[in-house]
Amino acid sequence: MKRRDVLKVAGAGFAAAAIAKPAIAQSMPELKWRCTSSFPKSLDTLYGGAEIFAKAVAEATENKFQIQVFAAGEIVPGLQAADAVTNGTVEMCHTASYYYVGKDPTFALPCAVPFGLNARMQNAWVYFGGGIDLTNEFYKKYNIYALPAGNTGCQMGGWFRKEIKEPGDFNGLKMRIGGYAGRVLQKLGCVPQQLAGGDIYPALEKGTIDAAEWVGPYDDEKLGFYKVAPYYYYPGWWEGGTMIHAFINIDKWNSLSPTYKSIVRTAADMTNVWMQAKYDAVNPAALRRLVAEKTQLRPFSQPVMDESRPPTRCSRRFGNRSAISATRNTCGGRWPSTTTTIT
Amino acid sequence: MKRRDVLKVAGAGFAAAAIAKPAIAQSMPELKWRCTSSFPKSLDTLYGGAEIFAKAVAEATENKFQIQVFAAGEIVPGLQAADAVTNGTVEMCHTASYYYVGKDPTFALPCAVPFGLNARMQNAWVYFGGGIDLTNEFYKKYNIYALPAGNTGCQMGGWFRKEIKEPGDFNGLKMRIGGYAGRVLQKLGCVPQQLAGGDIYPALEKGTIDAAEWVGPYDDEKLGFYKVAPYYYYPGWWEGGTMIHAFINIDKWNSLSPTYKSIVRTAADMTNVWMQAKYDAVNPAALRRLVAEKTQLRPFSQPVMDESRPPTRCSRRFGNRSAISATRNTCGGRWPSTTTTIT
Repeated sequence: MKRRDVLKVAGAGFAAAAIAKPAIAQSMPELKWRCTSSFPKSLDTLYGGAEIFAKAVAEATENKFQIQVFAAGEIVPGLQAADAVTNGTVEMCHTASYYYVGKDPTFALPCAVPFGLNARMQNAWVYFGGGIDLTNEFYKKYNIYALPAGNTGCQMGGWFRKEIKEPGDFNGLKMRIGGYAGRVLQKLGCVPQQLAGGDIYPALEKGTIDAAEWVGPYDDEKLGFYKVAPYYYYPGWWEGGTMIHAFINIDKWNSLSPTYKSIVRTAADMTNVWMQAKYDAVNPAALRRLVAEKTQLRPFSQPVMDESRPPTRCSRRFGNRSAISATRNTCGGRWPSTTTTIT
Repeated sequence: MKRRDVLKVAGAGFAAAAIAKPAIAQSMPELKWRCTSSFPKSLDTLYGGAEIFAKAVAEATENKFQIQVFAAGEIVPGLQAADAVTNGTVEMCHTASYYYVGKDPTFALPCAVPFGLNARMQNAWVYFGGGIDLTNEFYKKYNIYALPAGNTGCQMGGWFRKEIKEPGDFNGLKMRIGGYAGRVLQKLGCVPQQLAGGDIYPALEKGTIDAAEWVGPYDDEKLGFYKVAPYYYYPGWWEGGTMIHAFINIDKWNSLSPTYKSIVRTAADMTNVWMQAKYDAVNPAALRRLVAEKTQLRPFSQPVMDESRPPTRCSRRFGNRSAISATRNTCGGRWPSTTTTIT
């Protein structure tokens, strides 16, 4: 309604209603969004994060802003969630950014990099080290506005059909491994595979792959890996605190009122603490059950750790300096040049 | 408006308005609350938590639900914040629950106990181990409904005018120390004092006390302790992950609509992750500055740690068992009997 129309209507005695209403209509409109998760429903912590997020947004807006969550595969496969946001198939997704390192290795940085930040350091960086703004400068190339919305904490090193005693045992090993770490393990002769959660068990059972890492005891137990691979290694040095994100189509984000933007941001922060807390609550008991099922728990040997670490010049910097200054330097431009030493 | 009045009005053709309006009026009414913080404004992380919380609530409700934050001393002193909530002087406060162990030692449990939970374990317990419901069964005696809304992480052991090499060095030492830990240090001959943040520096400067612990490098630097006590000890074994709470007058909480309750809960969760992230972002640089100011950084010796630990039978249980089962047992009734071995 243009200003002169308002004046006309005012003449008819409707001025108060005509002026008061748009403020509410613009800031809390009825919205229905679709969120595609990268995870199957059975993983109630990873998948559940998107549902908790959507519930908080719906409750805060009295169901005016509804976000329907779809499991991996319902709209697009789990590893194509970001593409669905980029091209506007869905308004948003809930995913692990490092699934998309094939497009650009920078996708790993807000999520997890080998010998990188732990969960608390990651939060310190994204909320107080400029991490959210810095990574969104990158994401906008893909029409994405990203908010942290979950963390798994440090993950396990994964399930192996045979023991890994020394770096040479990785030679020729076909392993499902997420994100950037595969490129590091390639240096040890490992053949990394990127598979979505639901595809790992059959591959490990048939021997198409020799090893697989997913998340940690609670999720790994659900996926049943302990039935087909006896050795469970730790730590997952490539995922010290894997951050999960809400990727929102940037036009959809920009179209939100300040009220809805604030509600979405707060709900994402809540989901972040929710997911880490849930993993921390359920993992210890799951690990106990796995060991009772004859899982052989093993630390990676020092030679394996040492051989994995040196090539990641960029990542070593994370370990040696404070979270913020390290990440600022890395994300601020040096990442591409340092990664050339890895790939 | 009584039901029969509605019917009368309906006859006059206003039925739709009369029926539709209450749904909005009840769920998102105009509210103005006062929140008294236990902390001075200068401590922008502890005090700032209440402001971030209030901002999120205001933004989500388009300023319909406004919470005005007051620094310690503006309405009541910092250590009387809970009383102000209990007796309805204010609708809510933002405080450390262990300030009130004088009323009942159970107040320490949701906040911090010696050799207790770290920040992530604390979150696992409150969100997924029944912690919030369990502690609110206790708080209702004080007309309080409590929500976690902040964490400092593991704190430092504090500032000492002379070195502490062995347990005997605590004998006769007058020390400002928060929460339950003072009762443990009493076993070593220490004379614990409970002082609010703003009162510590003058007491330490004049020599009224010999030592003081507050939080960690960032806050301690602001309070200036390094100028009057050269030795800075770690770890603060009595505060492995000190949780800060929003205490809400229980009648005020019960009077909120489901929409407002959800908005308050989500904002409190956001504040929880916000505060820990901020401390993790600012503490390392502050510690570096303190050391540059000639602060002598010292770990407590093993004999000091060992002597502090054995009397806390109850707390040892926390260290040896999973967060949830330990806390369930402790809070479920055994706390009073075990604490009798300490006091």
